[in-house]
Amino acid sequence: MYQESLQLRERRRGFHLITTEVMQAFPNIREIKTGICQVFIQHTSASLTINENADPTVRMDFEMYFNKTVPENDPQYIHNDEGPDDMPAHLKAALLGSSVMVPIRNGRLALGTWQGIYLCEHRDHGGPRNLVITAWGE
Amino acid sequence: MYQESLQLRERRRGFHLITTEVMQAFPNIREIKTGICQVFIQHTSASLTINENADPTVRMDFEMYFNKTVPENDPQYIHNDEGPDDMPAHLKAALLGSSVMVPIRNGRLALGTWQGIYLCEHRDHGGPRNLVITAWGE
Amino acid sequence: MYQESLQLRERRRGFHLITTEVMQAFPNIREIKTGICQVFIQHTSASLTINENADPTVRMDFEMYFNKTVPENDPQYIHNDEGPDDMPAHLKAALLGSSVMVPIRNGRLALGTWQGIYLCEHRDHGGPRNLVITAWGE
Repeated sequence: MYQESLQLRERRRGFHLITTEVMQAFPNIREIKTGICQVFIQHTSASLTINENADPTVRMDFEMYFNKTVPENDPQYIHNDEGPDDMPAHLKAALLGSSVMVPIRNGRLALGTWQGIYLCEHRDHGGPRNLVITAWGE
Repeated sequence: MYQESLQLRERRRGFHLITTEVMQAFPNIREIKTGICQVFIQHTSASLTINENADPTVRMDFEMYFNKTVPENDPQYIHNDEGPDDMPAHLKAALLGSSVMVPIRNGRLALGTWQGIYLCEHRDHGGPRNLVITAWGE
Repeated sequence: MYQESLQLRERRRGFHLITTEVMQAFPNIREIKTGICQVFIQHTSASLTINENADPTVRMDFEMYFNKTVPENDPQYIHNDEGPDDMPAHLKAALLGSSVMVPIRNGRLALGTWQGIYLCEHRDHGGPRNLVITAWGE
């Protein structure tokens, strides 16, 4: 069982590929023949998901869609302490989730050809983000 | 590997913090230095997520948002056997998910400062809800 | 720790119960008294979720709802290379997730009475879909 902390530098609001960074933080993964890796984000206004790793316009369309489906400035929001991006960030984080789980096969993440891990930054100024990466297997 | 069942008493429809209850059901977590804890809900009309643990208005805004984005009484719903909250409850449960996975570090859930575990009760009268809590590590 | 690959035959667009197929692909689960099973899909335009296993109209309402909440032909989509179902498929996959995790108890998936595993096929012609099933326990 391996566990590492990884602090991601601040990213602008949007969806960002972090597969390479996650793998570099975890060189011991090569010692696991069969296993699982969890990537967990310790925040409630950013999230993680797995999606298309090739065309950057997919990530732009994600940002457009989630802004449309979780609008800012809904007059029914009560929790607005930190500005118009505050409550939408919490809702987007819940829709997308706080962790991804990827099987490990032969010392590598068994992602499909087109799969990558996204950091989903839902705040305008979210700051650095802390991940906990845990892997286990044999 | 530890596994516990936990029955949550009936909650009213909405989003409820259950972190303390989950941790009390699992005293053996202190014996795990590095590990993972899964909390799983055995229902299809309630769900689990991780979000802000401090301000109760966040949970009120969650209820407002999910009622708006998954409306009751859509005339296109076919499955209405158990009333107008039936089909929306299934959809909300799928959007939010049936389990949360939290890393364990030094005998404690490695949640971020502002993270808590929510029971998301999507039915008007959902009754008690059964969880299965599983933790493993070393 | 057990790991199996499972290729699902092509399904039409929509939501499909695959619990039996997953369990048949994993006879070794009987040897695990206490554990966890992960089912992971290696694609970004299909997803997995857990929901109601009895009434097929629930799955029809899922298809209706997700088509409404993630519409095709939004003029704001940039990524349209593979047709109108392309970008909505990526978004639906992110909303529903790329894996499900089910606790194992006494050699069986500890699903609730009404829970089943869904393949969520978001493409019109998605082709066969590859799963990686990993289980561990004692």
